[in-house]
Amino acid sequence: MGAAGHDWPARIESVLDRALRLPESGSARLREAMRYSVLGGGKRLRPTLVYATGTALGAAPEALDDPAAAVELIHVYSLVHDDLPAMDDDDLRRGRPSCHRAFDEATAILAGDALQALAFELLAAPADPAEATRRLTMARLLAQGIGTAGMAGGQAIDLESVGRQLDLTALQTMHRLKTGALIETSVLMGAAAAGVLEGPTRDALREYGAAIGLAFQIQDDILDVTGTTASIGKVAGADAAHAKPTYTSLMGLDGARAAATAQLARARTAIAPLGAAGAELARIADFVVGRAS
Amino acid sequence: MGAAGHDWPARIESVLDRALRLPESGSARLREAMRYSVLGGGKRLRPTLVYATGTALGAAPEALDDPAAAVELIHVYSLVHDDLPAMDDDDLRRGRPSCHRAFDEATAILAGDALQALAFELLAAPADPAEATRRLTMARLLAQGIGTAGMAGGQAIDLESVGRQLDLTALQTMHRLKTGALIETSVLMGAAAAGVLEGPTRDALREYGAAIGLAFQIQDDILDVTGTTASIGKVAGADAAHAKPTYTSLMGLDGARAAATAQLARARTAIAPLGAAGAELARIADFVVGRAS
Repeated sequence: MGAAGHDWPARIESVLDRALRLPESGSARLREAMRYSVLGGGKRLRPTLVYATGTALGAAPEALDDPAAAVELIHVYSLVHDDLPAMDDDDLRRGRPSCHRAFDEATAILAGDALQALAFELLAAPADPAEATRRLTMARLLAQGIGTAGMAGGQAIDLESVGRQLDLTALQTMHRLKTGALIETSVLMGAAAAGVLEGPTRDALREYGAAIGLAFQIQDDILDVTGTTASIGKVAGADAAHAKPTYTSLMGLDGARAAATAQLARARTAIAPLGAAGAELARIADFVVGRAS
Repeated sequence: MGAAGHDWPARIESVLDRALRLPESGSARLREAMRYSVLGGGKRLRPTLVYATGTALGAAPEALDDPAAAVELIHVYSLVHDDLPAMDDDDLRRGRPSCHRAFDEATAILAGDALQALAFELLAAPADPAEATRRLTMARLLAQGIGTAGMAGGQAIDLESVGRQLDLTALQTMHRLKTGALIETSVLMGAAAAGVLEGPTRDALREYGAAIGLAFQIQDDILDVTGTTASIGKVAGADAAHAKPTYTSLMGLDGARAAATAQLARARTAIAPLGAAGAELARIADFVVGRAS
């Protein structure tokens, strides 16, 4: 997914590994559960978006390490909690036992909680006054993106909708919050790290983020139907088994594919004004829709 | 607990009520579970510490509302998660059904998650550059105080220790992280809001916070033995029922009382250099050891 010369997934792996070398205080088992859940897997889409957006706007990769790690820690915490028996009850994640299966439920709850805290700790690292405002902005974007009007709110709607009929608008709202908000936030945090806090470029990037967030979820629903457990690293067919409303159940497979392609076009149009600087973001959009896992 | 002219518990109630008037996006049930868990109960010790420390050092109450609300939101999130069946499995909290009993487990997990996010959202509110550094410092203190080397780490040790023999040193370490860290953090955040980020006054306040954090936990253990379910608002005798190590089980009731009194003296000595400005902090220390609920 990296541009020529960039290997963001490799970079974020080493940044995350460093961030998870935690002080030897408290519970070794808790720290181990966090490392188990974060390291060694995942597409790293959200940190890649932070790096790609930030560098497109002139930020140095070093200025993007903390926000990139923060969005991935948040993403992983949400997976750990979503997999819990009281939530989606998934035994498999990224091709391995989910956190509460590898450890236990209490440890998984605490690991998620501590990963959220660690994300904000990274963003709140000491900074000179000019940088403090950018870091504070990033923390605000992240907190808003994952709270009641974002990720947590979307997951709550998702749970409430199991076994019910959702129409396309309600499904879209749910996904915009549950998955879209953190993807859009990752793009906006990359922009904030580059000092782009408002204006037309930020608005174009928000539109791009919204489009790929939606495309990502549609493709996820498609893969749940067309993929195998081995290829997608989680239990295939789980949505149908849980009677969850999906894009494929509402629009059919071809309809869902057409919708994903439409969002890809929307994403590319949004970043057209960036010109050559937006090339990597365009490639990421292609990847989101073209991915097989 | 307020000083003459201050009613911090009333102030924080209204600040929390305002903070929990959340945008009508996402799940109404989730927002309701958050309001249910936060409003209408609790001693509000941690926000009171923020206000008392901050005003002792010259901060205006308005500058303390966000950090005061943030520490209480975090405290409540930790109670909601600790009460879950996979953790301490408590049905009663603040004299009412705990969150997962009043709602359901999934909602309780998400409510805790969203309360943590909301705490950081409040701290990361837009600020002028000078204030941005203070807010970033407060966010860092909070994140450190509740992660693996703080609250979450302590809760993990607590769960691992059920049914085991802990010696007094291990018990002390567990409580220093589980309960003490957030109490100490509340004091330090009040100081940070007043611009006191380092130096002897901050060190004295950290010592004060550590002492009352410990005293608070010892008193909690005493009340679990001497109180009734009605008086303490949670199930009395729960520690013994869960075979949890406590100060009273290790030191006896008189020994625990002596230890609480010793921590009270330590707290008062630490803030003696503040003189009259420290009067409210001294009263809070008295309250922590003298409380019956």
